Amino acid sequence: MSVKEYCIGVDVGGTTVKMGLFNRGGDLLDKWEIVTRTENGGEAILPDIAASIKEKLAVHQVTPQEVCGIGIGVPGPMNAEGTVPHTANLGWGRKEVTRELTELTGIPARGGNDANVAALGEMWKGGAEGYRNVIMLTLGTGVGGGIIIDGKILVGSHGAGGEVGHTYADETVSGHCGCGNKGCLEQVASATGLVKLAKEELERSADDSLLRQEPVTAKAVFDAVKAGDQLAIRVAERFGDYLGKAIATFTAVLDPEVIVIGGGVSKAGPILLEYIQKHYLRHCYKATRGVQFVLATLGNDAGIYGCARTVLD
Amino acid sequence: MSVKEYCIGVDVGGTTVKMGLFNRGGDLLDKWEIVTRTENGGEAILPDIAASIKEKLAVHQVTPQEVCGIGIGVPGPMNAEGTVPHTANLGWGRKEVTRELTELTGIPARGGNDANVAALGEMWKGGAEGYRNVIMLTLGTGVGGGIIIDGKILVGSHGAGGEVGHTYADETVSGHCGCGNKGCLEQVASATGLVKLAKEELERSADDSLLRQEPVTAKAVFDAVKAGDQLAIRVAERFGDYLGKAIATFTAVLDPEVIVIGGGVSKAGPILLEYIQKHYLRHCYKATRGVQFVLATLGNDAGIYGCARTVLD
Repeated sequence: MSVKEYCIGVDVGGTTVKMGLFNRGGDLLDKWEIVTRTENGGEAILPDIAASIKEKLAVHQVTPQEVCGIGIGVPGPMNAEGTVPHTANLGWGRKEVTRELTELTGIPARGGNDANVAALGEMWKGGAEGYRNVIMLTLGTGVGGGIIIDGKILVGSHGAGGEVGHTYADETVSGHCGCGNKGCLEQVASATGLVKLAKEELERSADDSLLRQEPVTAKAVFDAVKAGDQLAIRVAERFGDYLGKAIATFTAVLDPEVIVIGGGVSKAGPILLEYIQKHYLRHCYKATRGVQFVLATLGNDAGIYGCARTVLD
Repeated sequence: MSVKEYCIGVDVGGTTVKMGLFNRGGDLLDKWEIVTRTENGGEAILPDIAASIKEKLAVHQVTPQEVCGIGIGVPGPMNAEGTVPHTANLGWGRKEVTRELTELTGIPARGGNDANVAALGEMWKGGAEGYRNVIMLTLGTGVGGGIIIDGKILVGSHGAGGEVGHTYADETVSGHCGCGNKGCLEQVASATGLVKLAKEELERSADDSLLRQEPVTAKAVFDAVKAGDQLAIRVAERFGDYLGKAIATFTAVLDPEVIVIGGGVSKAGPILLEYIQKHYLRHCYKATRGVQFVLATLGNDAGIYGCARTVLD
């Protein structure tokens, strides 16, 4: 019997599918992308992935028998059986994703929600390497999340575990969240939310600010903070307070070892963690004061790392 | 080899130790109590428990070899190895609880935090029977919690998993929480918190109310609600809003199947669930709308049931 030396991670997004070939030790041996064809209910997506994997394995002279599994991440809930109820971005209705991918490739497939597998990736080879109890927050257009308990993804009973962006933060915030609710963490702690907080402060205050000189982006806010801009600092304090409070609630519930912050906003670097942690310490339960705060390090590759890692248990 | 037909649950409180002898099917065959002797650093507690168990087994003509294990719950954090860092109510400093109890009895022991094992008890034979993903909130003097993921207690990395009473609820609340923080859920959603909310409303409003005629207790508030008392109903709405919002956050993170409400306040009955669920539905993430709300049914026996259940895996 051949040694199952390899594993494959497949991170399915609405525009591209990222894929990676790994050895069991977690070395990324090759990385490639294909276009996500969402037309006709996304019927070509899984066959395209299977064909691309076969092709790539041939290039590397790896047989399917040497691959212990394929992990696939999708932008939406997936239950423990690898079935999705509906994945709007991909055109899919109910689909038995892992069963179909296994049939198409002859290689056992597992899967998960993309934010959850990204957290697993950061635990395997990223900012949370060496830990077993992790909360990851991805601060991008929205706020995504993934929770790892004792080395395993918290999937939840509907595949909706770790939806930290849709926890309650502040009912007084203007507008509604994409989920339909009002006051979600995502509305105030995403890149979009940060821009909104900055615009509110620019309107409320007459103070001079670097933020009056250019389009307001998440990057511009933290660049201004680094330059000592007082208005931007007030915005960062409010942003940090929302996140610090929310994370204090998550740690009282989950008691993890480490918080990983990823997504576009995390490009601000360690100063972002300072603003979050300062407010975290004001609100956290005392047994959880020592939780570590780290930045994600795998960027857009977290998904393929995490997907590959799901097949190694 | 004898069949290991029995298990024992030991729920250690600051005043009494409750114990129960169960068969593997979860029938409670006998239940008894001893006094908790907390003097001298609580050194007598585990020997007293061991002696009482031996005596009781002799009465039932059960040999230690027929007992698959003893589960012990304590009022404080206990890590996965069965060690407590410090349990103030019992006089204990750091103590290897399960190792010592195993040595004293010759029967394998496991353990956990009392609120966590109570949740496991309710899953085994109480309000959450048949479910595998459970959040339990115990609304008593404080707010305790226990979380079950896929049939197992979420212990956390410091044994502080499920400390839902110390999640953030409202910074504007008067006074501080017993944990030292300000604005904890426990301050507004415990029996004590409910009384505080009622007293605030009695002061703020000039309305007539049944609550002006007797000492304000959690029971009096919900009795008045049942009698149609408008002031009490406003208090119940605010109480339900705090809990509904908090539980919406917990379910977005954990995606459980069922919420179990226990503790003294839960004696109000189904009307309590109505006030919580109404506000829950205003705030919850859509994938978690269908979560069930049930009352705890085991009362003070939840601990011994849950402790006994810990040794059956």
